[in-house]
Amino acid sequence: MQHLNLDQVQIRLATSNDLMAIIQLLADDELGKQREAQLIQKEIPYSYLKAFKLIESNPNIMLVVLEYQDEIIGTLQLIIFPTLTLQGCIRAEVEGVRIKPSFQRLGLGKFMFNWVKNKAIEKGCGILQLTTNKSRVSANEFYKNIGFIDTHNGMKMIL
Amino acid sequence: MQHLNLDQVQIRLATSNDLMAIIQLLADDELGKQREAQLIQKEIPYSYLKAFKLIESNPNIMLVVLEYQDEIIGTLQLIIFPTLTLQGCIRAEVEGVRIKPSFQRLGLGKFMFNWVKNKAIEKGCGILQLTTNKSRVSANEFYKNIGFIDTHNGMKMIL
Repeated sequence: MQHLNLDQVQIRLATSNDLMAIIQLLADDELGKQREAQLIQKEIPYSYLKAFKLIESNPNIMLVVLEYQDEIIGTLQLIIFPTLTLQGCIRAEVEGVRIKPSFQRLGLGKFMFNWVKNKAIEKGCGILQLTTNKSRVSANEFYKNIGFIDTHNGMKMIL
Repeated sequence: MQHLNLDQVQIRLATSNDLMAIIQLLADDELGKQREAQLIQKEIPYSYLKAFKLIESNPNIMLVVLEYQDEIIGTLQLIIFPTLTLQGCIRAEVEGVRIKPSFQRLGLGKFMFNWVKNKAIEKGCGILQLTTNKSRVSANEFYKNIGFIDTHNGMKMIL
């Protein structure tokens, strides 16, 4: 287990310079490795570049990175959108949460979600939501520990 | 149970004229009645009007109604957003699905989700997703019947 000083961890919006590291984080994961591109040729596939451009140009979609000693060690994406339900509630949704395996269990998850919660409140959101694969046992436990309630089933359909 | 001719059911984007009927649909529900405004005074609370304006002005957020013989009998909301995960996948998310109780079990759910699926494909989405409360037993069954897989837990945190 690494030693880590949380005061030296920076959380910020991703730039295109971070893309390679983010994609490697997404792929370095039990489920992710089956579905993300493996960057053997160190070239970023066009589909990621295209998605990044859409994300970057939308103030309500934030791709976030954790940086520590010039290394990208975590990422997540935050999406803010208005809904009519819950009396016209603005929702904050989190997707693509990853922490580099060698930096897990050091408090970075809580650190990231504190940032997310504050950002969501700043944006006027009334609810924070995400789905996590049922096979990710420790992730499910983590989310419940920080105050999420698993009231819902997350349904997916590949198109 | 009503008799219903699906050919006479129109699915379209909601206008502000539909708002009262939509809010009544959202509230006329086991879970919704605990959290939506009951429109006793027949006046639309400001929070819904504000959310509707945000939804209306965003081409990637669609508030949809089912209309039958000049009556609003169903609603849902579709949100389209780019993500970096799944190789830069655009996702379509569904929120706030309601069918008027007296019009349930007549095929309207399937009808609505056919529209949703086509719209999501038209918008370039690679995945369709939603969460449904675990206590909604028949809704959970319905989604699995039309091709969703309940791989995930849906986590919520009220802010």
